[in-house]
Amino acid sequence: MQRQKVLINGKRLKQELEKFAEFGRTENNGVTRLSLSKEDIQARDYFRTCCEELGMTVKVDDMGCMYATLAGLEDKPPIVIGSHIDSVKKGGRFDGILGVLTGLEVVRTLVENQIEPSIPITLVNFTNEEGARFEPSMMASGVLSGKFDKNVMFGSQDSEGITFGEALAASGYAGDIENRLKEATAFLEMHIEQGPVLEKEALTIGVVECVVGMACYEIEVTGESNHAGTTPMSMRRDALFAANNLINEIRKRLSVLDQELVYTIGRVNVYPSIHTVIPNKVVFTLEARHKNMEIITTVKDIIQGLPSLGVNEGCEVKTTKLWERDTVWFAPELCQLLEQSAASLGYSNRRMVSGAGHDAQFIASYVPTAMLFVPSINGKSHCEEELTTWEDCEKGVNVILDTVLALLSK
Amino acid sequence: MQRQKVLINGKRLKQELEKFAEFGRTENNGVTRLSLSKEDIQARDYFRTCCEELGMTVKVDDMGCMYATLAGLEDKPPIVIGSHIDSVKKGGRFDGILGVLTGLEVVRTLVENQIEPSIPITLVNFTNEEGARFEPSMMASGVLSGKFDKNVMFGSQDSEGITFGEALAASGYAGDIENRLKEATAFLEMHIEQGPVLEKEALTIGVVECVVGMACYEIEVTGESNHAGTTPMSMRRDALFAANNLINEIRKRLSVLDQELVYTIGRVNVYPSIHTVIPNKVVFTLEARHKNMEIITTVKDIIQGLPSLGVNEGCEVKTTKLWERDTVWFAPELCQLLEQSAASLGYSNRRMVSGAGHDAQFIASYVPTAMLFVPSINGKSHCEEELTTWEDCEKGVNVILDTVLALLSK
Repeated sequence: MQRQKVLINGKRLKQELEKFAEFGRTENNGVTRLSLSKEDIQARDYFRTCCEELGMTVKVDDMGCMYATLAGLEDKPPIVIGSHIDSVKKGGRFDGILGVLTGLEVVRTLVENQIEPSIPITLVNFTNEEGARFEPSMMASGVLSGKFDKNVMFGSQDSEGITFGEALAASGYAGDIENRLKEATAFLEMHIEQGPVLEKEALTIGVVECVVGMACYEIEVTGESNHAGTTPMSMRRDALFAANNLINEIRKRLSVLDQELVYTIGRVNVYPSIHTVIPNKVVFTLEARHKNMEIITTVKDIIQGLPSLGVNEGCEVKTTKLWERDTVWFAPELCQLLEQSAASLGYSNRRMVSGAGHDAQFIASYVPTAMLFVPSINGKSHCEEELTTWEDCEKGVNVILDTVLALLSK
Repeated sequence: MQRQKVLINGKRLKQELEKFAEFGRTENNGVTRLSLSKEDIQARDYFRTCCEELGMTVKVDDMGCMYATLAGLEDKPPIVIGSHIDSVKKGGRFDGILGVLTGLEVVRTLVENQIEPSIPITLVNFTNEEGARFEPSMMASGVLSGKFDKNVMFGSQDSEGITFGEALAASGYAGDIENRLKEATAFLEMHIEQGPVLEKEALTIGVVECVVGMACYEIEVTGESNHAGTTPMSMRRDALFAANNLINEIRKRLSVLDQELVYTIGRVNVYPSIHTVIPNKVVFTLEARHKNMEIITTVKDIIQGLPSLGVNEGCEVKTTKLWERDTVWFAPELCQLLEQSAASLGYSNRRMVSGAGHDAQFIASYVPTAMLFVPSINGKSHCEEELTTWEDCEKGVNVILDTVLALLSK
């Protein structure tokens, strides 16, 4: 098949993004569209209608994932494009839905240009990516890739005690296990960056090479509470001072490892947290992310060595690994195609990593996969201020279209 | 009047301490005897009976403070001995009540030895020293000394919305403003140390020269929350890292001022405290105590200078003074008498300061006042483990008795 030079319709893409922003719109121009909620189902229904109007066949699997397929000239494994329709509470108008509407706009462009694809093109909406209503996040792609147990997932409860299984059954989107995404020629997920790098560097396109590996620890420091006024400094076992020393060591040792390493002490609780009482316990989390797992291993060694650094102020220090995950590398040939497409369209771009998790990282375990990022204004996501310019959205979809055309012309 | 050599009855003192430990006893051998609670009233009633059996006259003032007076040969301003009967929630068996029973045992010893005092001796129970049910602490002595407004105090509510005024009226211990402690020859308050110094130094008696001055600040650090995985370290404004830097500076600068300075970062809250989110706010308190107010002034200068140290990691730092109080010096002549009494009885002793607040610090503003400390095992107080040996209690009361006899013989 001859590769054709076509561009998507940016105005139509914008209208559709605005249309979906109505499903769960919040007061401050954000979106609350929790998985399998009324708003999610409205959005799903509308998405189904859009796809059927294009002559696509819509199927649903046993996790509620939607697959809209435009038939190909040959019945070969499809090119899959998509992401997720659900959002966090008071989230933004771009996270997830942009990747789904990318697929819709690509198919609309093919159809209006009467380009019959050589192989099928399937748009996907993965159920419950956010995990905001039912933990964990990336639930459906996790089950599809064998990372999560379906029965356990079906028992996951929301804050009102409704299980995922119950919500799925009630939604009308409980489908057949036979419809699950199995083999595919490629999976392409476009997403907002959710970080500040592209904007700060004034670039339009990020070709994502991997989702970085990480390790997350909990560090518990136990000292002794005493009266703040009557206990001389030399007779204290102050858990806060010990935690402060440990944080100093963590920062000193991690900051020199690699400039791409990110590490965060996010959850911190001090007990009893009374101004006149010396703290007897501090519990904090430390998570670190990097694409090179050797660096993560070094981080783990540093964390596990914290108790024996001699900075404990007489306190006990215990480190517990909460979880870790390996770096997931995307298909190099797809990354190269995306990069070539961006360059051929004249869009500034760079290779980058994803520090956040995405369905693509699970799907990558059995389908050649890649991701594309477009800039997030101020790096914001999972909030109502989440914003990507219409121009950047349009350019991103043009890159995906060009790569799809490249794959079709192979 | 000739000074006599008598000693108190240690066994009787112990029995009485054990008796009062029944009023509000907790499962773990502690005491919950909140001000004007049923348990407090039971203890007050029993105390009144004990005093009346000794021929004392019991009066109550408008704050509910009890005054039991053994008449003197001359009607001059009394020697006052006492402390408080109330406790914190799950407090100990010694804090406060030891000072009240010290007075009772002193009078019992005088009576059984048929020593008629030259001037009256008044035992006092100050209402609501702890402030555990009705804030603030040292409420009644604060009103007596003109530090607190009575009407405001009467409006102070407990956790169930009951005001101090209502509880006082219902207790049967609302008395006459005319009965307030006015002039006195001396006020002596014996108390457990609530700190580890005497025990660590293997001493029996602490002659308290002052209640130390203090300053308490709240420090608020405001940064920016972003995704822990997608925000490079160089693009962060991490409020926790900024707070960590500030705590380093605080410790570095305060630790060199004076070894008697105590400082505590007790209340600490980190927001939003989610492991995957960079903290955007940390609020912590810093309180410092020292007898020399020049050192406290230096501490205040250091705190107020924190925002401009250049360690803020791009965050805003705001310091707010919550309160401060000056050092209260006790009457030197009474300190000297207590010291001489301890020495004459052969008890090891030292001069020391009180880092905690006591009714004595308010009463000292208009009555010659001093305090005596006996050791707290492991420095513990305000908890069920609070403990002072019976021997140390007995020795402390003997010192008070000896000093009372010295005052009577003047």
